[in-house]
Amino acid sequence: MAQKPSLPQGTRDFGPLVVQRRKYILQIIEAVFKKYGFMPLETPAMEQLSTLSGKYGDEGDQLLYKILNSGDYFKKLSAYQTQAMGHEELDKTFIPSYDNTIENLDPKKSLPFIAEKGLRYDLTVPFARYVTMNRNSITLPFKRYQMQTVWRADKPQKGRYREFWQCDADVIGSDSLVNEAELLKMYDEVFALLNLPVVIKVNNRKLLSALATLIKAEPHFVAITVAIDKLDKIGQSGVTDILVQTGLDTKQIQQILTFLNLGKLANPIEAAEVMLGDLEEGKLGIAELKKLREFLSLLSPFNTIEFDFTLARGLSYYTGAIVEVQANIGAFKSSIGGGGRYDNLTGIFGMPGISGVGISFGLDRIYDVMEEQQLFPSYLKTNDTKILFCYFDATTQLKALSLCAELRNNGIAAEVYPDITKKIGKQLEYANKLQINYACIIGESELQSNTLQVKNLQSGEQHPMEINSLITLLQ
Amino acid sequence: MAQKPSLPQGTRDFGPLVVQRRKYILQIIEAVFKKYGFMPLETPAMEQLSTLSGKYGDEGDQLLYKILNSGDYFKKLSAYQTQAMGHEELDKTFIPSYDNTIENLDPKKSLPFIAEKGLRYDLTVPFARYVTMNRNSITLPFKRYQMQTVWRADKPQKGRYREFWQCDADVIGSDSLVNEAELLKMYDEVFALLNLPVVIKVNNRKLLSALATLIKAEPHFVAITVAIDKLDKIGQSGVTDILVQTGLDTKQIQQILTFLNLGKLANPIEAAEVMLGDLEEGKLGIAELKKLREFLSLLSPFNTIEFDFTLARGLSYYTGAIVEVQANIGAFKSSIGGGGRYDNLTGIFGMPGISGVGISFGLDRIYDVMEEQQLFPSYLKTNDTKILFCYFDATTQLKALSLCAELRNNGIAAEVYPDITKKIGKQLEYANKLQINYACIIGESELQSNTLQVKNLQSGEQHPMEINSLITLLQ
Repeated sequence: MAQKPSLPQGTRDFGPLVVQRRKYILQIIEAVFKKYGFMPLETPAMEQLSTLSGKYGDEGDQLLYKILNSGDYFKKLSAYQTQAMGHEELDKTFIPSYDNTIENLDPKKSLPFIAEKGLRYDLTVPFARYVTMNRNSITLPFKRYQMQTVWRADKPQKGRYREFWQCDADVIGSDSLVNEAELLKMYDEVFALLNLPVVIKVNNRKLLSALATLIKAEPHFVAITVAIDKLDKIGQSGVTDILVQTGLDTKQIQQILTFLNLGKLANPIEAAEVMLGDLEEGKLGIAELKKLREFLSLLSPFNTIEFDFTLARGLSYYTGAIVEVQANIGAFKSSIGGGGRYDNLTGIFGMPGISGVGISFGLDRIYDVMEEQQLFPSYLKTNDTKILFCYFDATTQLKALSLCAELRNNGIAAEVYPDITKKIGKQLEYANKLQINYACIIGESELQSNTLQVKNLQSGEQHPMEINSLITLLQ
Repeated sequence: MAQKPSLPQGTRDFGPLVVQRRKYILQIIEAVFKKYGFMPLETPAMEQLSTLSGKYGDEGDQLLYKILNSGDYFKKLSAYQTQAMGHEELDKTFIPSYDNTIENLDPKKSLPFIAEKGLRYDLTVPFARYVTMNRNSITLPFKRYQMQTVWRADKPQKGRYREFWQCDADVIGSDSLVNEAELLKMYDEVFALLNLPVVIKVNNRKLLSALATLIKAEPHFVAITVAIDKLDKIGQSGVTDILVQTGLDTKQIQQILTFLNLGKLANPIEAAEVMLGDLEEGKLGIAELKKLREFLSLLSPFNTIEFDFTLARGLSYYTGAIVEVQANIGAFKSSIGGGGRYDNLTGIFGMPGISGVGISFGLDRIYDVMEEQQLFPSYLKTNDTKILFCYFDATTQLKALSLCAELRNNGIAAEVYPDITKKIGKQLEYANKLQINYACIIGESELQSNTLQVKNLQSGEQHPMEINSLITLLQ
């Protein structure tokens, strides 16, 4: 009995139309990346677990896909345990008792014996690894883009897959705000070309730090930003509840809420300057936002670029700019892109002092929004075939094959129906199902004359045509 | 102490130039696929192990990369063992004794508890799974192409990686030899466009079957083809040795060697007809090769398409045509592509009666040959940037940014050097290292007048230019 096949949860097949549409998005993103001077990089799907572990927090370590070692890992585990019994310095705790039974094995502690490789979790850590390993051959500033699959063992839900694509552009080795401005403009340009209206939100971590200083709550910085990050979902009262639990007093909370509302004013940066401009970090953050605004004014964005002080994502790694993109259409309000500046990307791999800034496009979410909003151009089809050649018998089949070859030699995507056993009706049905626009039926008369009967399958009209006119029509 | 990062054995990073060159190959292959009416498909990297296991033979099962389950697999193993003790029908052998100690665990038998998913091993089995799962929505004949990574835990060596790309085109639901002819022509066209001379070898399994019948050695069919498949490496005497060991007599072996040498004659198909044409399978095979030759003569291939009766690869699955491509240049003689006809692709998933034929391009091997033979066009660079804008201070930086934006708005890839702190010499050094052809230095005079000084960094010449002339020059 043959098995009924299935796909792993959170993964998808992409059929012809979906691939064409995904490639349409990817091509637009890649063309913009190249136009701004970014260079492609591709890293392996498989990385050493030592490269990935500990880089994404405890939750990330849980969500990493790990690849089983080959060989007899059980024997290795057992041998280590035996060896550990005789050595003080070796960890015996991963098998709690020497009875060595499997029900007592700790999956986490025995992991190094069972798996040494994992699947790419994002594109940033592999990029940092690449830069570190190739530091002597890279010219700084290094502008790289990378468009590849990443894998996360997350709970699948709307807009969240276990296998999905990220498209990243980063500049490292430069702390100029020109980079921030250009990256924001790249977001703007990609979404303009995709016909997908977005809001691009910008904040600066330095303002949030200054705010914590202002209200004398530096030790609570993380808790404050975590609360602010939830504003979209839980509202001001929800944020207030968390801040109360954190131990902040009414006056402190009031100042935080005042800060969060500054973005609604006509001149948010100037308003923030009044509030935070006397503090060291506030001064720096305000200066950066002003410079960024000046650069952006030269680049004439199509979409709204908004200074939003409530944006507090990724504050465990971002040190300057923080960016997020949301679709300004439809019901899906999760982020379809995000990024920011990080000051010590390669430090984890022993290469300190490299500042970077980057943005990321979430291909799968962009796709979902565009599909929901029907934003894909109608010219995207499952295939590129312009014409199908049909025929009756072995002789006309040869003629059809020759004519089809002539069209292809002129760069035209064309097909001959392969099976001689199928009637013309069946052949035309194939063209109709594949939405091929033209068909040309080769019969006795086409063997004698150079005139072809070319049928437009949409209108049903049929016209006699020389092969050269047909080539001109379809090119 | 920061760790020194490394890559898993058999995997590679692809830096900017390598990615551009790989994409150059991929684009040529994809354009030909589309021109012949093939439609794209993408399947997940992760498949159920139940989909992959048993499809590639025992060796393949060994080489599959398996993904560790999340959760406590040791507890599950232990629970199963406990349960198995009380039930006759459950397999107790995977833990040989009830002492349940890890050194006695069988990694193979306990695998279902530890891993349920694996990485894509080829593109054919996922394609068969896709067709089976989507049988109601697919129009037959279905011409699909697929260009994706596959993973094999093989011993890395020259031309063999653990993570590599395949580019497949298959037609299913049609047994017409038009498909074979077009697929061979697609090989021919791709390698002609890549400027890589190749030999495309064709055989037909039916002739090898007929040969076994002729010498009354049907039970030894597999052993005979395995021996023939090694001819390239071990020569006729090596093949003879194996055949002797298989138990064939001198006369049988002589007939096999005669058959293998037919390909060297002027009319190999007619020579084979004399030898095998009286046998049922011989007759069919000869007719197929003759028809294929007739179709191919209409398609005017650039490269040699050779009928080679020594070609015996993949005979465990191919049922008709067998195809292999070798570079006809350089020292690397391993296959850079291969394919054939298989009669029951989707049978393994419960969908019988679907015939298919396909070809595969090995991207990584094609790349290696092209690099060794220096066949990549010199216009392929790490980046597409046409011009770098340099400047002295905050005012000229703004002007440079505006000018750069104007070029980009006209579709020209351009960059502004980001860091205001770097001297002009440093800025030009960046352009030189990245092989950017032009630089434009914005100084005081460029702020006053509309004339730009445009420097050709290859010739060292500098010319004054209006922005519109610059746009025309670079477009």
